[in-house]
Amino acid sequence: MSDKIRELLENTPEVVNVGLELFARAMREQGGHVHSVEWKPPLVEPNKQALALFNDPTIAAANQEAVTRMMRAQPVIIGVARARDVIPGMSDRTFLHAGPPIDWQHASGPLRGALIGAMLFEEFANTPEEAVRKLESGFVELAPNHEHNAVGPMAGVISPSMPVYIAVNAAGENRAYTNFNEGIGKVMRMGAYAPEVIDRLRWMSRVLAPLIGQALQRSGGIDLRNIIAQALQMGDECHNRNKAATSLFYREIAPYLVECDAPASNIAAVLRFIHSNDHFFVNLAMVAAKVMADAAHGIPGSSLVTTLSRNGTEFGIRISGLGDRWFIGPANVPRGLYFPGFGPDDANPDIGDSAITETAGFGGFALAGAPAIVQFIGGTPADAVRATLEMYEITVAEHEVFRIPSLDFRGTPVGIDLRAVIRSGILPVIDTGIAHREPGIGQVGAGIVRPPVRCFTEAYRTFEQQYLVQRGALPTSQTRRTI
Amino acid sequence: MSDKIRELLENTPEVVNVGLELFARAMREQGGHVHSVEWKPPLVEPNKQALALFNDPTIAAANQEAVTRMMRAQPVIIGVARARDVIPGMSDRTFLHAGPPIDWQHASGPLRGALIGAMLFEEFANTPEEAVRKLESGFVELAPNHEHNAVGPMAGVISPSMPVYIAVNAAGENRAYTNFNEGIGKVMRMGAYAPEVIDRLRWMSRVLAPLIGQALQRSGGIDLRNIIAQALQMGDECHNRNKAATSLFYREIAPYLVECDAPASNIAAVLRFIHSNDHFFVNLAMVAAKVMADAAHGIPGSSLVTTLSRNGTEFGIRISGLGDRWFIGPANVPRGLYFPGFGPDDANPDIGDSAITETAGFGGFALAGAPAIVQFIGGTPADAVRATLEMYEITVAEHEVFRIPSLDFRGTPVGIDLRAVIRSGILPVIDTGIAHREPGIGQVGAGIVRPPVRCFTEAYRTFEQQYLVQRGALPTSQTRRTI
Repeated sequence: MSDKIRELLENTPEVVNVGLELFARAMREQGGHVHSVEWKPPLVEPNKQALALFNDPTIAAANQEAVTRMMRAQPVIIGVARARDVIPGMSDRTFLHAGPPIDWQHASGPLRGALIGAMLFEEFANTPEEAVRKLESGFVELAPNHEHNAVGPMAGVISPSMPVYIAVNAAGENRAYTNFNEGIGKVMRMGAYAPEVIDRLRWMSRVLAPLIGQALQRSGGIDLRNIIAQALQMGDECHNRNKAATSLFYREIAPYLVECDAPASNIAAVLRFIHSNDHFFVNLAMVAAKVMADAAHGIPGSSLVTTLSRNGTEFGIRISGLGDRWFIGPANVPRGLYFPGFGPDDANPDIGDSAITETAGFGGFALAGAPAIVQFIGGTPADAVRATLEMYEITVAEHEVFRIPSLDFRGTPVGIDLRAVIRSGILPVIDTGIAHREPGIGQVGAGIVRPPVRCFTEAYRTFEQQYLVQRGALPTSQTRRTI
Repeated sequence: MSDKIRELLENTPEVVNVGLELFARAMREQGGHVHSVEWKPPLVEPNKQALALFNDPTIAAANQEAVTRMMRAQPVIIGVARARDVIPGMSDRTFLHAGPPIDWQHASGPLRGALIGAMLFEEFANTPEEAVRKLESGFVELAPNHEHNAVGPMAGVISPSMPVYIAVNAAGENRAYTNFNEGIGKVMRMGAYAPEVIDRLRWMSRVLAPLIGQALQRSGGIDLRNIIAQALQMGDECHNRNKAATSLFYREIAPYLVECDAPASNIAAVLRFIHSNDHFFVNLAMVAAKVMADAAHGIPGSSLVTTLSRNGTEFGIRISGLGDRWFIGPANVPRGLYFPGFGPDDANPDIGDSAITETAGFGGFALAGAPAIVQFIGGTPADAVRATLEMYEITVAEHEVFRIPSLDFRGTPVGIDLRAVIRSGILPVIDTGIAHREPGIGQVGAGIVRPPVRCFTEAYRTFEQQYLVQRGALPTSQTRRTI
């Protein structure tokens, strides 16, 4: 025997195990010293001709440009308007909704419920039955919020005469819009449309929104990124926990509300409405994230994810360098905690534009800073820390502004790289509300969910094709056929 | 050689090392396996006749009763009044101050500065020089807040016509009082008395306090324990970080302020004043803690600490079972971070009644839940966690209401046991503001401080004597002589 072989047989072997822990365990049981390396196979088998894209410096540079624009976007909320009057491309018969495109036929219960609610709110129908008939007949055109610079939580329905917030990017050109938060439980965004739901929406439209609009105008605009950055140091992750952010927004706006030309009773009612709902800020967190994500969209060559969104049936993502095309997969059902009287059988699949917060580097990506949220979504504070740490594996930067004190003020993981998701097999973590699967009921819980793998594999195939075409490895026509 | 001895010499010894790590290190260097047990000698050599007090079930029961009263006290803020009109035993010439009793001669710079400020505020003097002459001549009587059911941060000066909050114990009989927070920097409680300081106090007295009083009356009272419990899950420790608690209080009171009979401009000004100062709530946190601590005071046989307080010269503590007697030692200087332009040479020794928060199981004892505070007081988030964990060594309970999410919702350490401090040598950790040592300047930083050992050794000697007397081991007369 050679010395080398003798050494191997006589000494305890030092083994490096890559991937499945099963092999490492067997080796350890036989007395070997095993060093485990976490590894999962990639989500798809990459085209060998395109392997270079994983280390391509031009893609890295494009992603750096995109994530920098995302982090440096400065969303400021400047006012309130009627949706139809400000949202680009919206007609008197357009209903916007969360997630990728969908029609009435394929809409889930809570989205249907919210569309019925919007028909009643707009007085397009007098009864839910009439609303359903008209929705079936194509009385209104359905379109994704995301294709109209807008976002909305859960069903995310924005109808023409609803009031919306206007957010601008003080460090760029883009704008975004979102609706107002109604509270929790039996609310339209969760699929409820009972008379009290519509009455609340009418009061919001008549009293709440105009007063907040007037106050915002007096204020000269409120910096949303600044509020989010503070709230992330106060136990919020600004998706499913917005207690601090709601408080900070309330502090900012209250003095301007007091100075508005309105009866004190209305001002007090508006303040009480905000005070009664720790989720009031979530729409503002989302519109801020939309401003950030849109600022990062459309960078040629970038593999950054700029949309994560769900319509209750399908999950859709969009990629900075792949234009406005959606990559779709079937939405998963969140795992989480249920309100009393409800359980997993009641849960609708994942729904809402709110995963725009994760897209912009907070929400589920900032769970480490929000340990108290586990009382609402389940799990333990240690799980929350692990979730954030895992997201560093699939992101290209640590946020310059959003920092987590308990991680020694490390920036949140920001800028999901499609390539890193494919290579690592790690999917983005999203924490979210859970709507009842039937229309008309509302919120039943909150929990954690991941996108379907298919969104990423589809996007990757397109990204790979585009990469090969651009390098002359494939003719354009072949690409078209393949996709 | 016997088998036992042979075994000892032939095998690697397994050693348990108690206390100094030095010995363990030497043993380890010689190849021994050492298990270290943390241990420090007690702060005093206990009287051998009294050793039983460390395991006496009647003391444990008294402490349990005391800490239960402390945790279950329910401080509610019900209104505002002129100090002279509500604080028991206060005359038109009484100036209350922080910490144990002191006279003008021994008062430190910031306490002198605040007393000068109060003379100007009360119009007892027209100039600082006249104020000093009158203070030297005994024009006013000085008395500790703590002896009048009151507390005040830093210098803690409450003069007869200042407005004070009234807090009641909804689960008991006791009440407590505190003054209003002026903001940070150049403020009277830090020893400043410039004209703008006095003008601000006059505005607070004329506009702010009456409006808050009116709003509190309309509200029917605001539950302070509830706000503190929430804020401890939002990154505050409610001594040196009150950003969440200030926000939550603001949310509660704003609608009632709006409904007050007052010009909108005044209401907006009050809201802006609160909004501009994240420390606004600290006085309310303190008065809540005072209600809690006083509820635990006076339990016969209890060794629970019910006061920790400093006047800028001396630190004083009081013990539940030892009546109203103070146990005194020289105040230490906090270690911490300084505002630009200031450093350790500018620091006054520890000052203020605010260590009542630590007495009641939050403040420094809840640092683990407030990692962002290290930007203000120094250290790292890991230090903050260690500080809280260490305090479990000297407390008798984990708080039923105050919980820290990142420690898996463990209750904060509450109820400092004098005996545990003596036995472990661990002193309570307090995080605190730092005032300039000269009168007239104000706050220069914030940091961490511990009480002097002497407060605890003096208190222990008295507790021990009382214990022996009660068990007939010493005649009462000898006790008197010994103390």
